[in-house]
Amino acid sequence: MVKKLINNPDDIVNELIEGFVLINSKKVKRIGDSNAIARIESPIKGKVGIVIGGGAGHEPLFLELIGEGMADAVAHGQVFAAPSPDHILKAINAVDGDRGVLLLYNNYAGDVLNFNIAQDMAREQGINIETVLINDEISSAPLERREDRRGTTSDHFIIKLAGAASKAGMDLSTLVKFLNKAVYNSRSLGVSLSACTLPQTGLSTFTLEEGKMEFGMGLHGEAGVKKVDLMTADETARTIIDYLVADLPFVENDEIMLIINGYGSTTRMEMFIVAKNIYEYLSEKKINIYSGEIGEFCTSQEMAGISVTMIKLDDEMKKYYEMPAYSPGYIKP
Amino acid sequence: MVKKLINNPDDIVNELIEGFVLINSKKVKRIGDSNAIARIESPIKGKVGIVIGGGAGHEPLFLELIGEGMADAVAHGQVFAAPSPDHILKAINAVDGDRGVLLLYNNYAGDVLNFNIAQDMAREQGINIETVLINDEISSAPLERREDRRGTTSDHFIIKLAGAASKAGMDLSTLVKFLNKAVYNSRSLGVSLSACTLPQTGLSTFTLEEGKMEFGMGLHGEAGVKKVDLMTADETARTIIDYLVADLPFVENDEIMLIINGYGSTTRMEMFIVAKNIYEYLSEKKINIYSGEIGEFCTSQEMAGISVTMIKLDDEMKKYYEMPAYSPGYIKP
Repeated sequence: MVKKLINNPDDIVNELIEGFVLINSKKVKRIGDSNAIARIESPIKGKVGIVIGGGAGHEPLFLELIGEGMADAVAHGQVFAAPSPDHILKAINAVDGDRGVLLLYNNYAGDVLNFNIAQDMAREQGINIETVLINDEISSAPLERREDRRGTTSDHFIIKLAGAASKAGMDLSTLVKFLNKAVYNSRSLGVSLSACTLPQTGLSTFTLEEGKMEFGMGLHGEAGVKKVDLMTADETARTIIDYLVADLPFVENDEIMLIINGYGSTTRMEMFIVAKNIYEYLSEKKINIYSGEIGEFCTSQEMAGISVTMIKLDDEMKKYYEMPAYSPGYIKP
Repeated sequence: MVKKLINNPDDIVNELIEGFVLINSKKVKRIGDSNAIARIESPIKGKVGIVIGGGAGHEPLFLELIGEGMADAVAHGQVFAAPSPDHILKAINAVDGDRGVLLLYNNYAGDVLNFNIAQDMAREQGINIETVLINDEISSAPLERREDRRGTTSDHFIIKLAGAASKAGMDLSTLVKFLNKAVYNSRSLGVSLSACTLPQTGLSTFTLEEGKMEFGMGLHGEAGVKKVDLMTADETARTIIDYLVADLPFVENDEIMLIINGYGSTTRMEMFIVAKNIYEYLSEKKINIYSGEIGEFCTSQEMAGISVTMIKLDDEMKKYYEMPAYSPGYIKP
């Protein structure tokens, strides 16, 4: 049983949001006592409003990714649960300026259901609103059913592109096309070395035997694709890269964004060791790393493991990636 | 036994450094094949060179804190072990411009021994060099033996002040006085909910019983001051703040920097909940939080727990805190 520093388990998300708003009080505002939080200057004229959201428990995703050059508002659910439509609508209303609103979130059934209800409600209010779904995780469905795949660790990069392009004045329909291209070019796969727990109970969502690791396990304990004996960092790196490269596929001379994400208790030390092995392997494959990032971008409580995201870049994506971004959870100077 | 993504256990630190340098190849350089890493533009004329260092295993400390407005070079030891004098000397030589060099590190016996040897060697080379020791951790010795206390989670803040003041042209002797004041004003205390492991073996450095937590445990499993039944986040926050406030002591109308640090597997969700409780308690005590930060600044592998740092600010400290800083592990826009 994992020990957690919490108070009343029913208050976890409310207190998480309160702490976040207190620390970032000059930058963000909570909409009433809802689980919708927006940039303090919202709504902003001249740009599409970017609304993100999803379940809690994956911090810094999603809460900490609102800021200049990033998202404008977030709708938060309870732990591992989609936000409710009324909170999503509050987030939409908070950022509806004069250029429309984009909903940008991960492809999970509960999220799709609730965001769609909120989108319909917003349209009834006359708001110009569209959706882009993130579905980068390659183990969750085969390539021919790519639209069924779940979204994971390309999130902060896609949100960053959305923030930069909307800030630069891109209109809503162009933005949808641009982000769908970026999502299409994004492929992620993770490996888990331990289970994660529900913080309300301290109990594991699943078990992973001593000495084993699992490829493709989901952020909430969804079944993976392959359970194997614990590999070295180098073997793990090569196995993940082989899956990712074959999927898009990535080819020689491609230029990519590389993201190595820690799920929770895996150290940055391990992430750097994996990074070294990936850089060497991609160099062998003549795939060029334009920029590499390591960090905890999308966590699953204290689960051990990492995920790797490869995103094929073009000039348009590089242009918006290079623009500065300032959010509590992700800064690009 | 904790599973780790590593290769040969003897190569951990070497591969950690290689991965770090590959990801940050435009910003940092490794000095030969040593464990000394410096900013790529080193040595820089017109500023005191700032050298930091210590054992590996606490990432992002120390490796990731070199950058503009932060440290100029780092000397890295093996896991939980001080860097050797020859590597420290390489770091010193890499950043020795025309204003002297400052050694800035945590007060642990092994580090003091090796940094002092390196300092003597540098002085024999004619280098103008001084030392500031960080000793903010209040449980490791009573107040009357403050100089025996170990250094912990005020590190990135003190390093940030050193980077900003040296960049602004502060001379070496003034810098030593300024940083000693900042260290004196810094007080930290942590609570551990689980042990950490040595990554070479996957075995715990100590045990902490089911349902217990320990105040004041050190980053390498040093004994704490008080073992208690698991408290709520609010009780934990109030207990830590009571210890910290009594120590300096902090008084009404003090203006402070607040840092809530995660040791490893504790989630940002928990840190925000603790933050909420600390903001409320310090408000009751009429102690003003000038700025608050949460994150993993100084970790101890996958140990669960947090530490809280309070730093009493004055105008000089605020001035240098507000200057921008860009390092892979800490950015202040």
